[in-house]
Amino acid sequence: MTASKVLPARDFRWPVALKPYKDGGDLYRDVTRHTLLGEGEGEEALSFVTRYFEVAAGGYSTLEQHRHPHAVVVLCGRGTVQLGASRFAIEPSDCVYVAPGEVHQFRADRGERLGFLCVVDRDRDRPVPVPPR
Amino acid sequence: MTASKVLPARDFRWPVALKPYKDGGDLYRDVTRHTLLGEGEGEEALSFVTRYFEVAAGGYSTLEQHRHPHAVVVLCGRGTVQLGASRFAIEPSDCVYVAPGEVHQFRADRGERLGFLCVVDRDRDRPVPVPPR
Repeated sequence: MTASKVLPARDFRWPVALKPYKDGGDLYRDVTRHTLLGEGEGEEALSFVTRYFEVAAGGYSTLEQHRHPHAVVVLCGRGTVQLGASRFAIEPSDCVYVAPGEVHQFRADRGERLGFLCVVDRDRDRPVPVPPR
Repeated sequence: MTASKVLPARDFRWPVALKPYKDGGDLYRDVTRHTLLGEGEGEEALSFVTRYFEVAAGGYSTLEQHRHPHAVVVLCGRGTVQLGASRFAIEPSDCVYVAPGEVHQFRADRGERLGFLCVVDRDRDRPVPVPPR
């Protein structure tokens, strides 16, 4: 028996549990999370976690920072990423590196959803929200 | 100064060096590799590497195995992945887990290119080719 598998996609949904983005709070809006690989049974060999986040049009993730880095690849829609004091328009297949400690936020502020993969270490520190300036 | 950045995509090409898939050999055909994140300057905090492989129509990666696992997400085209004795058709956004030791191969055998992200640990063992049966 093997743990290898294919998770087929249908319009950016996969046969894994949809989890809340975070537990409550009003620092974000309209964000969902799929954990694709790295936390499930039989996936213990993975030291990193592949998640898919989707921000509905008009929504945004928490403005936050943490020590662990992010590797992000956009899968669908359009939006903006804030990295420190800079903002960048992002579209499908654009790749984003969020360095340790960087204040960052993803926004679906261009009239469409924004869906992206975000890979992180399995063992990582908790994000800390940053008050908007 | 920060190491954070956006790598904009244009038809599944990014402003990073295109590397050969492997160094020579005839066990694969028409495969290119972009290392998107995890090996560049300023990316030392990443313990994993995000690569993009593209198999041209009719091509295939090496049939191989290794101890490190793969987390794969298809970005474009169509093809087939072999996992042990099983084969699965794969399309954009499908996600593939290749467990440690699994014999695997990606084939663009459905008349189109097959482009996919493949995330691995930065420190990992070398793949070992498997003779076709």
